[in-house]
Amino acid sequence: MPRLKPAELETRNREIIVAARRCFLRNGFHQTTTDDICREASITPGGLYHYFGSKEEIIAAVIEDVAQEAVTTLGSLVQQSADTRSSVRALVSVFSQSLRDPDLDTATRLDVEIWAETLRNEKLAEITRRGWAMRRQWLESLIERAKADGVYSQEVDSNGLANLIMTMWLGLRLGRVLWREDFNVDATLDALFLMHSGRLTQTDVMQPLTSAAPSDGAGGEAGLNF
Amino acid sequence: MPRLKPAELETRNREIIVAARRCFLRNGFHQTTTDDICREASITPGGLYHYFGSKEEIIAAVIEDVAQEAVTTLGSLVQQSADTRSSVRALVSVFSQSLRDPDLDTATRLDVEIWAETLRNEKLAEITRRGWAMRRQWLESLIERAKADGVYSQEVDSNGLANLIMTMWLGLRLGRVLWREDFNVDATLDALFLMHSGRLTQTDVMQPLTSAAPSDGAGGEAGLNF
Repeated sequence: MPRLKPAELETRNREIIVAARRCFLRNGFHQTTTDDICREASITPGGLYHYFGSKEEIIAAVIEDVAQEAVTTLGSLVQQSADTRSSVRALVSVFSQSLRDPDLDTATRLDVEIWAETLRNEKLAEITRRGWAMRRQWLESLIERAKADGVYSQEVDSNGLANLIMTMWLGLRLGRVLWREDFNVDATLDALFLMHSGRLTQTDVMQPLTSAAPSDGAGGEAGLNF
Repeated sequence: MPRLKPAELETRNREIIVAARRCFLRNGFHQTTTDDICREASITPGGLYHYFGSKEEIIAAVIEDVAQEAVTTLGSLVQQSADTRSSVRALVSVFSQSLRDPDLDTATRLDVEIWAETLRNEKLAEITRRGWAMRRQWLESLIERAKADGVYSQEVDSNGLANLIMTMWLGLRLGRVLWREDFNVDATLDALFLMHSGRLTQTDVMQPLTSAAPSDGAGGEAGLNF
């Protein structure tokens, strides 16, 4: 193996990650072999081993890379915006558009496979968690800025809202791949925007149900598996 | 095999489903063998085969049973309520309580495994979709009643809102198992209730972004993989 400068090593490392991601998206995590990745990245098994010791290390690098890329993309989107309000609007727009992109399903299918894998593999679970922590941190700091600029109410807990946005994002993506034609993205987003603007209901249906308020006991049994 | 009356066959069928679900929850779908199910249900392999031809048929029956049970449980909750408004409140309460129940994670872990399986198995995908169609239909009819009784605004699309509720439910459950201690359910639900009441923001951050309005083009590239 020829000696490479650190910058070249870094570039090659990144090329392998991108090639591996293409393989995983095309054939799934389990179906992809390290030979497939070598072919896609034009590298020998010995060369690959110099960068990554196992398929698990490669998927870990892919998970980290995707999280890093998401945060970088959103970061540049925010930098292009005139103010925090435009940033939030741009984000809502990019999330909505992405949810209408059929390519998203390919990424979601790979994620579902990775999530199933994290249930048996603590190392992968940790890396997945770290990737989401990166996104959460980014969202939290944007929400804090939006609060400071008066775009969001002072009542908002930035950690709670960041988690809410991430769970919605996951749920909407899952809905697409699980329910397919039974799932109308536009109608669902319309309902979300109506909810966001407080126009779902005029009554205080949910008011007394925040965690601070005592439970009214109407629920009965706790373990509903809806 | 002794001749059983239809009602006895039905009871035995249901006992097997319940026993199988216990096995799947305990050891996962892939780790569970039909022998495990036979032991749990106190039945011989020959006896089991009389009811279910394969492990796939058993998991299909479990998926259907869980959906049916969810709809039945919620149905009786609604029947106990004085009016539609109390029904909606009772539902919000039972969903919130369930999200705080640690046992929910066991069910979610099994679901993640099932979702991953549905990506490779069209028959299972179809059964999963049917289970969610059952829940969606139930939610839609409740929302329609809530609209008729003035609890929900006439602007609400019942299909869109039903799908939104289901995606949130999935996302919140996923957040628990993926993010563990990084995920504060109470803070997240507080943010949801704040959003629901329209108190997240005083500005019209999301207003022009409904599907009916033209895109403002702020998003740029569509394929964000957040």
